[in-house]
Amino acid sequence: MIRDTGPVTRAEIAAHTGLGRSTVAHRVDALIAHNLVHEVGEQPSTGGRRATALAFNAAAGVVLAADLGATHARLAVADLAGRRLADRAVELPIAAGPHKVLAAVERKFLALLRACSRDPTAVRGIGIGVPGPVEFATGRPISPPIMPGWDGVQIPALLRARWPVPILVDNDVNIMTMGEYTSGWGRNENLLFVKVATGVGAGIVTQGKIYRGALGAAGDIGHIPVAGHDDVVCECGNTGCLEAVAGGRALVRKLRDLGAEVDDSRDVADLVRGHDPDAVRLVRESGRHLGEVLASLVNALNPAVIVIGGDLADASEQLFAGIREIVYLRSTALATRHLEIVGGALGDHAGITGAIVMVTEHILSPGVFDAGLAHVIC
Amino acid sequence: MIRDTGPVTRAEIAAHTGLGRSTVAHRVDALIAHNLVHEVGEQPSTGGRRATALAFNAAAGVVLAADLGATHARLAVADLAGRRLADRAVELPIAAGPHKVLAAVERKFLALLRACSRDPTAVRGIGIGVPGPVEFATGRPISPPIMPGWDGVQIPALLRARWPVPILVDNDVNIMTMGEYTSGWGRNENLLFVKVATGVGAGIVTQGKIYRGALGAAGDIGHIPVAGHDDVVCECGNTGCLEAVAGGRALVRKLRDLGAEVDDSRDVADLVRGHDPDAVRLVRESGRHLGEVLASLVNALNPAVIVIGGDLADASEQLFAGIREIVYLRSTALATRHLEIVGGALGDHAGITGAIVMVTEHILSPGVFDAGLAHVIC
Repeated sequence: MIRDTGPVTRAEIAAHTGLGRSTVAHRVDALIAHNLVHEVGEQPSTGGRRATALAFNAAAGVVLAADLGATHARLAVADLAGRRLADRAVELPIAAGPHKVLAAVERKFLALLRACSRDPTAVRGIGIGVPGPVEFATGRPISPPIMPGWDGVQIPALLRARWPVPILVDNDVNIMTMGEYTSGWGRNENLLFVKVATGVGAGIVTQGKIYRGALGAAGDIGHIPVAGHDDVVCECGNTGCLEAVAGGRALVRKLRDLGAEVDDSRDVADLVRGHDPDAVRLVRESGRHLGEVLASLVNALNPAVIVIGGDLADASEQLFAGIREIVYLRSTALATRHLEIVGGALGDHAGITGAIVMVTEHILSPGVFDAGLAHVIC
Repeated sequence: MIRDTGPVTRAEIAAHTGLGRSTVAHRVDALIAHNLVHEVGEQPSTGGRRATALAFNAAAGVVLAADLGATHARLAVADLAGRRLADRAVELPIAAGPHKVLAAVERKFLALLRACSRDPTAVRGIGIGVPGPVEFATGRPISPPIMPGWDGVQIPALLRARWPVPILVDNDVNIMTMGEYTSGWGRNENLLFVKVATGVGAGIVTQGKIYRGALGAAGDIGHIPVAGHDDVVCECGNTGCLEAVAGGRALVRKLRDLGAEVDDSRDVADLVRGHDPDAVRLVRESGRHLGEVLASLVNALNPAVIVIGGDLADASEQLFAGIREIVYLRSTALATRHLEIVGGALGDHAGITGAIVMVTEHILSPGVFDAGLAHVIC
């Protein structure tokens, strides 16, 4: 409340929350002891006396965030208000395994802290996104298909020795969703985010929160089958999966068959930007396949807005045209009455933005604070 | 809190909630003034004095609930703890339109109140379920396909003259979901409820609440297309919709083509119960089609449990066999690792149970209570 409303007095906090004065005094003392709140001079008081106002101290500490992709990562240091103080994008293949990757992440974190002249002891929390399903409560990847060596690894436990702070881990699509939800799309409570890159995945916001499902697998739409593609074998062992039919790997394969020199979804995006006719046609076709699956999800979830991100979405309106064509054909009239289908507002910064939001929101939430900020998710 | 924990003192409420003593005193006074809480004698107090304990007064009033289906309705009177005092099932075709149907509902309500010797002034709230999409905030059906004359009608406004109390309206599948969620399936926060009867629809529980989507259309899975059925025309104007391929109307049509004398999904359910080979085979086939759509939803939502209700589900394990066959084939390994697919625990009482829960939870929630219980949803 102090962060969101600006300087307030203890009496105003009591009046606004209904909490007793002694409860307010006790909690404010604890916030001051942690340096999260400081007194900023006196405010006129109703009783004639002047009361001391309290303000949120965004500089009381920093958070570290990492958005780990299949081959690249983005890392950042931010203050407690979520403002980025330093960030860096680096090559970092997730397939190198947890020990090598996390050691590299720690080195980058230390370098970024030096770059903004902060001491490691100032770190209040760490937020990490990884490219695979995660059991959020424990920070463990669960059967992640493109993360060899990471299955079941408690990521917070590996970092806790050096960083005795809350460490939160979620999958990359969920943190992108969090980023677009809080920063890009005005906290619309019925939002579906879809990432279209090498893989295809979704993040679902319901009741104003990321919906993770029973085991953290919610949003895993890449393996929903697309009709008429039983001949396309997916890495998961099934056939006709959306990701295998319409994702970046599928586009690379199809374009190579046509003689194009492409290695990954970024190359495909470059071809589309250059108006290569084959690439444009194939991306539009991918859009239609995505539209088939999204039409079903629109009926089931009735979102107000679908935000499409990932490098293939960022590259081309053709993808959106294909998606809209099928969604408006195949979803119910009611579900599409006010539906918006739009591109992400944050581009390839959605993930790191969301990782920062995830950890700052967590360390400032009452439950964590009551435990004295020493709570480590694990 | 008083309802859920039993007799407590004002001091215990203050200690448990952190609210100031004057806030607690003020709110308790208001609860006593509304007769929702009464003093039940003295409890030993820490200070040597004896403090008065407060208890929830479930008999302080009653709620009315109605579960309106296409042709039948179930109505009930319950106390504020949700215990049913009287209920009745009646024939009541929704197609008779809002004025006739609601007049009949009011007559039944008055008769039920007489049956349990309660005065209409004791009514604290009304909960109603209807067989179509509803804008929950206003209680208006929106383009409901089988409710001629109801489109855009503010149901609470039509009842408010006689009943100046909160009146909540939701669609029938959502109230069934609420019933199974709160009474049948132990409040599992990741629950998907599917109704299989004349129509097919779903209710989605996320973050422990019914998820309604942007316009109240969430869960409308009956119009998700099933592959390979482009020749089946649905009432919605599209082809191959799940409901048109696998719902009760489709089964009636197929069984009639085979010479069976069936009029509605209840007749089909009776044939299945009697082990009619055609009916059993066709219901299993319907299960497979349902499984195709549910497999996609399992990937997208990762529910912990899918509860299947409605008269076709209540009739036969064959439907479940067909559903499980396809869901376990087509959903990801992670999403089905601990997935349970089970029948409803409440049968055809799920809807009325959920309508009672909806209205009692609402009238006891702080926001409504602060407004003095005179708040009418509209």
